[in-house]
Amino acid sequence: MSDKPLILGAVLYEGFELLDMFGPLEMFTALPPDLLQVVMIAETAGSVTAGSMAGNNMPTFIADYGYDDAPQLDLILLPGGVGTIPELENEKTLSFLKARASEAQITSSVCSGSALLAKAGLLDGKKATSNKMFFSLATAQSDKVNWQEQARWVDDDDVVTSSGVSAGIDMSLAIIARLFGQEVADRVAIGAEYTWHRDADTDPFTQYLNDGAPT
Amino acid sequence: MSDKPLILGAVLYEGFELLDMFGPLEMFTALPPDLLQVVMIAETAGSVTAGSMAGNNMPTFIADYGYDDAPQLDLILLPGGVGTIPELENEKTLSFLKARASEAQITSSVCSGSALLAKAGLLDGKKATSNKMFFSLATAQSDKVNWQEQARWVDDDDVVTSSGVSAGIDMSLAIIARLFGQEVADRVAIGAEYTWHRDADTDPFTQYLNDGAPT
Repeated sequence: MSDKPLILGAVLYEGFELLDMFGPLEMFTALPPDLLQVVMIAETAGSVTAGSMAGNNMPTFIADYGYDDAPQLDLILLPGGVGTIPELENEKTLSFLKARASEAQITSSVCSGSALLAKAGLLDGKKATSNKMFFSLATAQSDKVNWQEQARWVDDDDVVTSSGVSAGIDMSLAIIARLFGQEVADRVAIGAEYTWHRDADTDPFTQYLNDGAPT
Repeated sequence: MSDKPLILGAVLYEGFELLDMFGPLEMFTALPPDLLQVVMIAETAGSVTAGSMAGNNMPTFIADYGYDDAPQLDLILLPGGVGTIPELENEKTLSFLKARASEAQITSSVCSGSALLAKAGLLDGKKATSNKMFFSLATAQSDKVNWQEQARWVDDDDVVTSSGVSAGIDMSLAIIARLFGQEVADRVAIGAEYTWHRDADTDPFTQYLNDGAPT
């Protein structure tokens, strides 16, 4: 464990999925700031609006930093969402992820966020997973990834990818356990009254692989 | 089911708990906008920052409406968090909740949000619950409430209160099931790859009653 707090960069983009981001951040921000601190980042600092596959009106959030002025990151958290598809064509996001992941200890994604990591080449030669409903969106981005269809999350050292939406919460607790110990992660989960799915390989939603829109 | 979409008012205040709000909103915003629409409300429109018991740096959100200009609400969602304690002294919030709950079909709270509902007198004569760690904060606000120590959530018709943080997700799915049917709620849970705790009376965290800060 380092003397300085780890800096976690939470990367927002238009149309990101709410719980992909704020489930894991609930867990990470339950840590004291001498262990870990969160910074909110987007292409440019300022407002970013979440997305919903159903087309519902979504809340707006403030990014404190743009890609150009974000501090050095020890950890990266990248959500998925309906906004993933246009973001796959955003060279600035792909370049930012590539540059910052090379310096980070762990780059993590939730849901279709792994499609962006794959497009940026960050998963080549790695084991990774993605959300069940649109699994093929991720796999289409690179055939050099060892894609895991059945996984709640996949920890491949410097990249940790999770399955859809809620799976990000389980992944974030596993990252906390890896960085700060099992007891710390257990206390965080209990504080949030969260029944942690502890087994990365048990995936209750594999049956919905590529089932598409659920609603 | 009404012809018009139900309007859900999500009430933000400084120091609210992230997942209390965005867990349930993930589920509610998975509904199509012809069924339900979400509006973000705070004392005044503009930025509101979440809180963390650990004192970590927290994200900032935008409220679209202030108490004075918020539209009529069919549903209310009130989070808890470290900000609950100062908010208990905010007469504007208590008056807003009292006035709007009287017109709403369902007023719901997560975690220590029920302390605010109790202080506003909205739980008198009702069954209700709150988060485990600081249960006494809620019970101290009114002795006219039938407080339930063991409950994931409590549905007492026009008020539905949940236990701590993650329990709000289970409660929101129960509200969706009540309003739109079990099948709709199931599809929303599957879409978020969320293993729904369906039994309101099964509470895995009762043993931590009034245990205080978990981290």
